[in-house]
Amino acid sequence: MSELRWDPLKEHWVIIATERGRRPRDYQIERITPHSEVCPFCYGFEGKTPPEIFSVRSYGEPNNPGWQVRVIANKYPALRVEGEVKSRGYGLYDVRDGVGAHEVIIETPDHYKGMADFTPAEIANVLQAYRARLLDLRNDFRLRHMVIFKNHGAQAGATLSHSHSQLIAVPLTPPVAAKELRVSQQFYESHERCIYCDLIEFELKEGVRVVIETADFVVLSPYAACFPFELRLYPKHHAHDFALMNDRQLAELGITMKDMLQRIKTVLKDPAYNFILHTAPPVQSRPGKPEYWSSLGYDYHWHIELVPRLMQIAGFEWGTGFFINPTSPEETAAFLRDADIG
Amino acid sequence: MSELRWDPLKEHWVIIATERGRRPRDYQIERITPHSEVCPFCYGFEGKTPPEIFSVRSYGEPNNPGWQVRVIANKYPALRVEGEVKSRGYGLYDVRDGVGAHEVIIETPDHYKGMADFTPAEIANVLQAYRARLLDLRNDFRLRHMVIFKNHGAQAGATLSHSHSQLIAVPLTPPVAAKELRVSQQFYESHERCIYCDLIEFELKEGVRVVIETADFVVLSPYAACFPFELRLYPKHHAHDFALMNDRQLAELGITMKDMLQRIKTVLKDPAYNFILHTAPPVQSRPGKPEYWSSLGYDYHWHIELVPRLMQIAGFEWGTGFFINPTSPEETAAFLRDADIG
Repeated sequence: MSELRWDPLKEHWVIIATERGRRPRDYQIERITPHSEVCPFCYGFEGKTPPEIFSVRSYGEPNNPGWQVRVIANKYPALRVEGEVKSRGYGLYDVRDGVGAHEVIIETPDHYKGMADFTPAEIANVLQAYRARLLDLRNDFRLRHMVIFKNHGAQAGATLSHSHSQLIAVPLTPPVAAKELRVSQQFYESHERCIYCDLIEFELKEGVRVVIETADFVVLSPYAACFPFELRLYPKHHAHDFALMNDRQLAELGITMKDMLQRIKTVLKDPAYNFILHTAPPVQSRPGKPEYWSSLGYDYHWHIELVPRLMQIAGFEWGTGFFINPTSPEETAAFLRDADIG
Repeated sequence: MSELRWDPLKEHWVIIATERGRRPRDYQIERITPHSEVCPFCYGFEGKTPPEIFSVRSYGEPNNPGWQVRVIANKYPALRVEGEVKSRGYGLYDVRDGVGAHEVIIETPDHYKGMADFTPAEIANVLQAYRARLLDLRNDFRLRHMVIFKNHGAQAGATLSHSHSQLIAVPLTPPVAAKELRVSQQFYESHERCIYCDLIEFELKEGVRVVIETADFVVLSPYAACFPFELRLYPKHHAHDFALMNDRQLAELGITMKDMLQRIKTVLKDPAYNFILHTAPPVQSRPGKPEYWSSLGYDYHWHIELVPRLMQIAGFEWGTGFFINPTSPEETAAFLRDADIG
């Protein structure tokens, strides 16, 4: 069983995922996971993965070819649904069972396509899978927060090259989400407005950091970007919960994401990248009194963060929490706006 | 002039270091900084660096051969000493001049030696340079915090292979330091003890996560380590400020660091790593009323964090602030204790 462990000095939780099973000796031998000859994410090898939880498919039975998007449990999960969400003390430390969910969204049957190569409709299929899984996992009241993310390329932490994203549901609010929720709640309490909406309005007026604008979405190079070419995609109109987006909105989001990913792929020659979907915690269905969602999260504003992995996070960043970005977001935005993506 | 920019959504400062001069187009061309043929950190090329600020030397004039350790200003500084520490508003954002100091500690004249290959006395020389620079920079009241760190290997962010560490002094308290200072202060207020001292006592009693213990120092695998083989080195007896260590203590610290670095080098085959010196902010000489050091930082406990770079920080870690560590600290500690380092 994985463990969640609390560091009282740094005030953070860490998942000690011993089920992933890397012994100390393993690090001597291989630094990079070797590619197996058979890709378990390709048509015909569905039996090599845990059974599918959800799929978008045009033909065939579950766990057989015919799918466009397929969601499975992670074979080496960081967290598992079995166990109790209850912490125990150990000296000054805390520890709890590694309860949660860890799923893999296989985004395409095509082994050689990255998400930037998908059609907008294919991206929208992936977004449909995200929405369906978020809505389903809400029924498990133990799961306090869900994060969907994508690691593209080995430098971004991907161990399999076949295009996929992941969903991890955790039994406590992650620090990044807790802070964003607190900030939006505090701003709402004093201003009765959404801080994200205010910032989006400001950015659209300024224009210098805007990369893409459509009827419903905007892609920005953030003013205080931690990394070169970091981008944030927001719905222009207030929306706290990605899972409440309708089909038309997901279709338009597919178009916007295609544009964003293609620009990054073109100008940076297919760099490794991560993206992360930040959305409000699943409050609607939850009984009792939660800590962070006293506001029900309605003052939050969902968004997607994209970080191309062009630089290493080094000692300074890790040791201070400050980031040094050698390239200005305004220059980056202009460069991406002007990019010729054919 | 570099800028410090405030993100009101994430509540963090970012250094937009445009003086480091990476244009958006640069990322298309090179991902890795090419090695120049002449190493500016070797004997005979002292003229290729900014003039030396401090050195430990056995012969010769400043900026000439004869040094064992040499401290210079960074040629491409993230922050500069010129400018005013004053923030201006910009919409919901904040911005201030990138005031600070950015120095490079060249740790040896030998191009081919890593710190793990140094003698304990050579490491102690480097520590002497750290201490001297920390004490000197305290005279600049604008500099609120100093961090010394080392990036070893390209995967850890090093752009030059010649062994060196860096010192960055910043005009505001970094988030990681602010949290550690707050934690130690709060614990002291309620317990009248140092939380680090308590944890060290607990760890020495438990024993399972102890890697090295000497008369004055201990090296631990932290209970909630974020990364495999992460280590923390603490003075066993309460000491808030690294810069107040005496020569005898630095000599013993040299022995402990040699042992720690050699174990890591041996068992992981010279991995890339970062280490970071965490020490109390320079309060003694500061006039007026500071924010975080109301306790004067005396309840802090300096330490060194070492992180071998065996895994990528991926989307989940970046998006949540949670870390997944696939190897237990207890196993790591046993493995390092038993390592045959000859």
